Amino acid sequence: MTINSHLHKEIHQQPEVLQTLLNNERDVVQQLATAIKERDITHVIIAARGTSDNAARYAKYLLGAVNGMVVTLATPSLFSIYNQPPRFGNALVMGISQSGKSPDIVAVLAEARKQGALTAAISNFADSDLAKQADYVIKLNAGEEKSVAATKTYTTSLTAIAALSASLSDTDEMWENLGQIPSIVETTLGMSSEIIRSTERYRYMEHCVVIGRGYNYATAFELALKLKELTYTIVEPYSSADFQHGPLALIEQGFPVIIVAPTGVVLPEMQSFMRTLTEHGAELITISDDKETLDLSRVPLTLPTNVPEWLSPLVSIIPGQLFAMHLAHTRDYSLDTPRGIRKVTETR
Amino acid sequence: MTINSHLHKEIHQQPEVLQTLLNNERDVVQQLATAIKERDITHVIIAARGTSDNAARYAKYLLGAVNGMVVTLATPSLFSIYNQPPRFGNALVMGISQSGKSPDIVAVLAEARKQGALTAAISNFADSDLAKQADYVIKLNAGEEKSVAATKTYTTSLTAIAALSASLSDTDEMWENLGQIPSIVETTLGMSSEIIRSTERYRYMEHCVVIGRGYNYATAFELALKLKELTYTIVEPYSSADFQHGPLALIEQGFPVIIVAPTGVVLPEMQSFMRTLTEHGAELITISDDKETLDLSRVPLTLPTNVPEWLSPLVSIIPGQLFAMHLAHTRDYSLDTPRGIRKVTETR
Repeated sequence: MTINSHLHKEIHQQPEVLQTLLNNERDVVQQLATAIKERDITHVIIAARGTSDNAARYAKYLLGAVNGMVVTLATPSLFSIYNQPPRFGNALVMGISQSGKSPDIVAVLAEARKQGALTAAISNFADSDLAKQADYVIKLNAGEEKSVAATKTYTTSLTAIAALSASLSDTDEMWENLGQIPSIVETTLGMSSEIIRSTERYRYMEHCVVIGRGYNYATAFELALKLKELTYTIVEPYSSADFQHGPLALIEQGFPVIIVAPTGVVLPEMQSFMRTLTEHGAELITISDDKETLDLSRVPLTLPTNVPEWLSPLVSIIPGQLFAMHLAHTRDYSLDTPRGIRKVTETR
Repeated sequence: MTINSHLHKEIHQQPEVLQTLLNNERDVVQQLATAIKERDITHVIIAARGTSDNAARYAKYLLGAVNGMVVTLATPSLFSIYNQPPRFGNALVMGISQSGKSPDIVAVLAEARKQGALTAAISNFADSDLAKQADYVIKLNAGEEKSVAATKTYTTSLTAIAALSASLSDTDEMWENLGQIPSIVETTLGMSSEIIRSTERYRYMEHCVVIGRGYNYATAFELALKLKELTYTIVEPYSSADFQHGPLALIEQGFPVIIVAPTGVVLPEMQSFMRTLTEHGAELITISDDKETLDLSRVPLTLPTNVPEWLSPLVSIIPGQLFAMHLAHTRDYSLDTPRGIRKVTETR
């Protein structure tokens, strides 16, 4: 199947742009890490929307588990509408935005600068409004993203965050692992044939949920967003823990559940949750590198093995991006300009 | 329509239990506020799941906008699964749990105590595992909640948070406003006839989204959760800002959108967003006290007027609870024991 679209191109550019980011931005990331250490900062506040907010969710787990930091997702409306910014104290305040234009995100960084907090921006444009408010700018180096649905700017944002975690940890091993990611992403892109076959089955799927936990909580959110934007399916992301506190009531015979479950410490719990879902009649579509986990599923989507858990979100979103794109194609929807939305959304 | 169920009783007990909480817990809330000030704390970390997590969302906006505090929703799996707790620094760490039993929530408070942080619990049981880890326990005073879907333990949790905000602000006016809430909730419960009439229309609604912003972002989440638990509708909550960053693509002719939009500083933006939704063909069901806003809707659900915005979530969830209950009744579903879930969920 040939798909001529910006989306298809941009998804397949990911190995290259991730490599470019790693080559070009290591110095500035290292400088930011040094500034964080010099100020003895243990608290990070991140402002972001949409896909960038999902990258922030990754930061919440990664900088928490690996670097012992508390990460807060900011509430931009406190700044832009209520005009009552909280006191940041000794925090790093970071904005993530592909365009760097959304006024509510810019407002959070402007306030942070006013309060004297350390500021950083992750953006595809080093001269954006957001970047102008930041002490340190990590440029995504993703090149222009023409498709409305963000793909390469998501994985480059994750890579920027992973690089910051590696710099803060100051271990060569993390940098070495990170350096292998572009080629692993390349391998993953080559494993798309079972995804293409599977999408016919979901031509008329109207809704589903996506479950991820820990590092891959972010993946569940991002995959859900891609499915909403590209295929107009009603999709809600959940952690397996939160899902059991109420929403489990939704599950009935045949209810489709996408599981993101690469190898890692959360895997045994995910397997147990998958068995519960199966007892309730759910149909499981699973993204994993683990054979036993894939075997629990109606539709397995296979990942490469030997990816460290902390980096797995950079790889596990790839089958999700491909699944959303091919499902949109199966439904004859526009891949580059979904109905009702634009590339740059400016919210207050 | 007579509905003989625990759920119906518990929804209607709310004016009484809110009053009991305000009578019994003012002292301990005041003591907690004093301890926060003595330690010069400006950062609050909250651990919660399900309905309690929605109460935490209210805290995020209220303690932020009124008290200048940064509020972080904890990631319990960092404690219970990754076993890599972050450094809390000089924060208040608070757990919210009706039962006080979920091991992941208890683990966050136990770690906080180990690190020497100030701890607090909001729970219906003063002798729960969670309460045992807390320096201060605000008891919900809600009485036993027999229905699986939480209602009175949600509004009492909100009231506990509102009382903390009033104590931190040290203004009599906030306490006076809060004191009027039980009778306003009573009034709201008396306005249910248009809700009962409206539910027939949604007998076969399979999915919808709920939109709220600012203080009522929490209301959108809680209403969505009640609809999922009680009516098995696929419902996703959103802020109006986030919804425009992608999910707007979902909207097609007749797509049902529930809007929570009481009077307040976010109202003009919500009205503008409602017009956008209408242009895209959405069907609007609106919870508001503002005539102009209600007039923008296909189905208006009217709130009492003159409720201060910061307290509006305690009132605006009431039509939501009634709507979810009556819709479940319209569908002949069990009101007290939804399929697949239990009252106390213990997650790791």
